Amino acid sequence: MEKTLTRKRVFEGKLLKIDLLDVELDNGDTSKREIICHPGAAVIWAKLPDDRFVLVKQYRKAVEDYFIEAIAGTLDPNETPDVCAQRELQEETGYTAKSMTKLGVIAPAPGYTEELFHTYYAELNPVQGNMNLDDDENIEVVYYTAEQLEKMIKSGEICDAKTIVAWHLYLQLAE
Amino acid sequence: MEKTLTRKRVFEGKLLKIDLLDVELDNGDTSKREIICHPGAAVIWAKLPDDRFVLVKQYRKAVEDYFIEAIAGTLDPNETPDVCAQRELQEETGYTAKSMTKLGVIAPAPGYTEELFHTYYAELNPVQGNMNLDDDENIEVVYYTAEQLEKMIKSGEICDAKTIVAWHLYLQLAE
Repeated sequence: MEKTLTRKRVFEGKLLKIDLLDVELDNGDTSKREIICHPGAAVIWAKLPDDRFVLVKQYRKAVEDYFIEAIAGTLDPNETPDVCAQRELQEETGYTAKSMTKLGVIAPAPGYTEELFHTYYAELNPVQGNMNLDDDENIEVVYYTAEQLEKMIKSGEICDAKTIVAWHLYLQLAE
Repeated sequence: MEKTLTRKRVFEGKLLKIDLLDVELDNGDTSKREIICHPGAAVIWAKLPDDRFVLVKQYRKAVEDYFIEAIAGTLDPNETPDVCAQRELQEETGYTAKSMTKLGVIAPAPGYTEELFHTYYAELNPVQGNMNLDDDENIEVVYYTAEQLEKMIKSGEICDAKTIVAWHLYLQLAE
């Protein structure tokens, strides 16, 4: 356990916010923690009726490469994870879900970010509507079979953590 | 692709550093990206000769809970991932590896952090030496069988992304 003694905002950007905390450890010592404040995100592991999975491909500046990832997005203010999942699915891919099952809540980097991934499995309706991307989003919808996904994870072509976790949780559900 | 036009440091904490970038998108528009600068980390998926896996349990202030995770730690300046993996294994658990196999390189949150997890599978020597923790680290070494791990992931008791990814990559290797 680490008891919060003080907490203050030390950085406030457009996307990222950082709080600095003084904490008391179990042994009575004090330490400092820098934490990224984050409202959380929804991750949607999406399958079409023909058993292909729907993912998205986009350039990720932080790691300077194109990434193939599960559909995902940050919660809007006062938005529940369930609503966010439906919204992000439609915005990023144009698809809608006929059913949505919660797979779990995952922490991508609990050492320094509050972010939690509320992870869902969605069975999609087959008809794709319009996408609705932010101005600076350039997202390509991509389709893979189970066999292709397993190979792409093994080869490192898919190397995004939430995507591999969503796949593992989906496989557990499907067992 | 996103071409970097300008890059400047906008926050420098003890642990976290943030750069603000102006980037040019494929369509010629410009946008801003806030990125957490990170040297990367090593993750060690460790197995004892008796087939139990060695993980660590610690309090994670950012998510206000105890977390069971794969052994991991940040690269020191000029340290290679291979050397970091050996060092973190010894420091956090007191164990040493008789063999170390690279499982892959994983991005925990490519939307905003440079961090990459250099992920290894280690077969351990059975004798545990002394741990060597930082002053503000309070880490408990914990042991689980494959069957226990799969159940704990399914129930959500293990919900750290790198841990589930390391487990999935290990299972692919073991196939």
